Amino acid sequence: MEKKITVLPGDGIGPEVVASAVRVLQVIGKRFNHTFHLSYATIGGAAIDQHNNPLPDETIELCASGDAILLGAVGGPKWDNNPPELRPEKGLLRIRKHFDLFANLRPVKAFPSLLDASPLKREVAENVDLMIVRELTGGVYFGEPRMRTENGAIDTTVYSTAEIERIVENAFELARLRGGKLCSVDKANVLETSRLWREVVEAKKKDYPDVQVEHNLVDSVAMKLITNPSHYDVVVTENMFGDILSDEASVITGSLGVLPSASIRGDNFGLYEPVHGSAPELAGQGVANPAATILSVAMMLQYSFGLKEEAAEIERAVNSVFEDGYFTADLTRDGARTMTTNEWTDKVINEIDTSF
Amino acid sequence: MEKKITVLPGDGIGPEVVASAVRVLQVIGKRFNHTFHLSYATIGGAAIDQHNNPLPDETIELCASGDAILLGAVGGPKWDNNPPELRPEKGLLRIRKHFDLFANLRPVKAFPSLLDASPLKREVAENVDLMIVRELTGGVYFGEPRMRTENGAIDTTVYSTAEIERIVENAFELARLRGGKLCSVDKANVLETSRLWREVVEAKKKDYPDVQVEHNLVDSVAMKLITNPSHYDVVVTENMFGDILSDEASVITGSLGVLPSASIRGDNFGLYEPVHGSAPELAGQGVANPAATILSVAMMLQYSFGLKEEAAEIERAVNSVFEDGYFTADLTRDGARTMTTNEWTDKVINEIDTSF
Ligand SMILES: CC(C)[C@H](C(=O)O)[C@@H](O)C(=O)O
Ligand SMILES: CC(C)[C@H](C(=O)O)[C@@H](O)C(=O)O
Repeated sequence: MEKKITVLPGDGIGPEVVASAVRVLQVIGKRFNHTFHLSYATIGGAAIDQHNNPLPDETIELCASGDAILLGAVGGPKWDNNPPELRPEKGLLRIRKHFDLFANLRPVKAFPSLLDASPLKREVAENVDLMIVRELTGGVYFGEPRMRTENGAIDTTVYSTAEIERIVENAFELARLRGGKLCSVDKANVLETSRLWREVVEAKKKDYPDVQVEHNLVDSVAMKLITNPSHYDVVVTENMFGDILSDEASVITGSLGVLPSASIRGDNFGLYEPVHGSAPELAGQGVANPAATILSVAMMLQYSFGLKEEAAEIERAVNSVFEDGYFTADLTRDGARTMTTNEWTDKVINEIDTSF
Repeated sequence: MEKKITVLPGDGIGPEVVASAVRVLQVIGKRFNHTFHLSYATIGGAAIDQHNNPLPDETIELCASGDAILLGAVGGPKWDNNPPELRPEKGLLRIRKHFDLFANLRPVKAFPSLLDASPLKREVAENVDLMIVRELTGGVYFGEPRMRTENGAIDTTVYSTAEIERIVENAFELARLRGGKLCSVDKANVLETSRLWREVVEAKKKDYPDVQVEHNLVDSVAMKLITNPSHYDVVVTENMFGDILSDEASVITGSLGVLPSASIRGDNFGLYEPVHGSAPELAGQGVANPAATILSVAMMLQYSFGLKEEAAEIERAVNSVFEDGYFTADLTRDGARTMTTNEWTDKVINEIDTSF
């Protein structure tokens, strides 16, 4: 297989974790006989510095000519006081919208060897294996009007039935491939968009008799994600609720540093990035945890290229390195050796190599 | 002191926990020489059944003639398929709005004897003592337009500068009386209302040089509330974020059954209710945990009547009963005896009586 991947290292630790993930990708290519062509472009703060634009046209064009995007992270204190249009995260919001990447998939799965780092009791966190499906291009993130008024300000949550249908279908399909359970999250006791959301889920469920569906209110899910996270399989929700709940869910497993994400749109194109941010305070020291970005590459192989075996091999290697007790500084516990970003990546690569 | 309290038992376990709380209130009255006049009215499902209205005019009038409101809980499956205007929670939303109860205070404090029931590790939860201040009468809960459109639906988040100012002031005052720290939560990287919110906090903080202020994004707070909840003192946020974060925070301590709330407006009038819902599946069995409602009475004594010593006495008694190992069924652990609602209330009352 031959694929073109656009790499957007971004800011802070972005370039470092992306470099690690690219090394792993190339090893997978070699082992399984695929050719991955990489082209690099700027986004976020780096793009503002070079082009005065958090998402330059060159970047959009390069991404459009490729099969998938690998992103590091954007943002940092340097750009914190910029006007809204010249802030790094605007690049992220615009690339999602430009490529219509409406489905953000965030798997949360416990690595047994990391559970000591979880704020939750082991018995609460240990069997967690859920996927949050967040609508990513609608809702209050993009709804108009959004502005100052004479005496205040307003934002608007907008959803068309079609926008809800496509994300809900996506979630049903995922539930069918996973544990067969779908939890749809809304605030139907207050919001009109939520009542429409619930109706759409109710209508769609007739096409998926094999999927068990529940509706739950966002406040209630915010509790249950912590008290009983293993209850969940696929959780689908709108953009703003998804932002909050997916970040909340990310703490279950004990490290944000190991969580990948995919932003897809129904064909094979997609953007893959770690859940964590650019951690400017760690940048340039070679200490960042590259696991989340490496696992994002696994998601790319699976969702954009249909390479399931290759994706599984990366996951196996990462898990095995954790099981062997190797950690970057964010995860190190008493007695364990701390590895640099590159040392840890070497371990993963060795694990892949030696398993021929 | 002589005070008039309107009691709205509501649905499910509401009447049972309210009955317990009223018994405790009367004992406090006797011990400290106050007279509390109680009048009862309907709200929620009970009011729909009797008056076809979740908040009848009689209820509003009675509440208006009193000094404070004690509410149980509303809702249940019986009314789940009613049209929006005839649903129990509409009574709740309307009473908040009618009396302009714009500040919802939700303290979350660890009872050491309950930490085994927390999903969090003991060392994460044990020093938690925070207060969420949620704006309760604005934002997307009440903003217009909220409706179906030709091809979808919309909701509107509306905040006036004045609405933000009053809740933020309230939170600053509370921070000053507590640990001197205020975390303001918004989504200023996306929302216009959040940018205004942040500006108001920045402007107000000049009046409170003794309070240490931080701004934090809602997604980030959703994580940190679980990874490091003892970081927080007072947390202030808008209505929808507050709904989600306060429910999330409610799981830290190990039981929703012990968390009180106050909804106030700046003068002495206020509405006091447990954080938990009506738990219809437990209703009528005498097993509900009355602690949250009893502690809501303590908040009433403190915030509406300025009776700090009396409030502290209730808190001391509740804590002491927990320390002695007495629990209702929701909290019982191996070896501990399970008490009924009434038995547990008796313990609290004894504790108050014998401490003369
Ligand atoms: C940076 C921000 C705009 C973004 C979002 O809210 O979508 C981030 O929190 C995320 O979840 O990817
Ligand atoms: C019942 C519902 C409308 C209400 C709310 O969202 O405000 C409840 O969740 C609460 O927090 O009191």
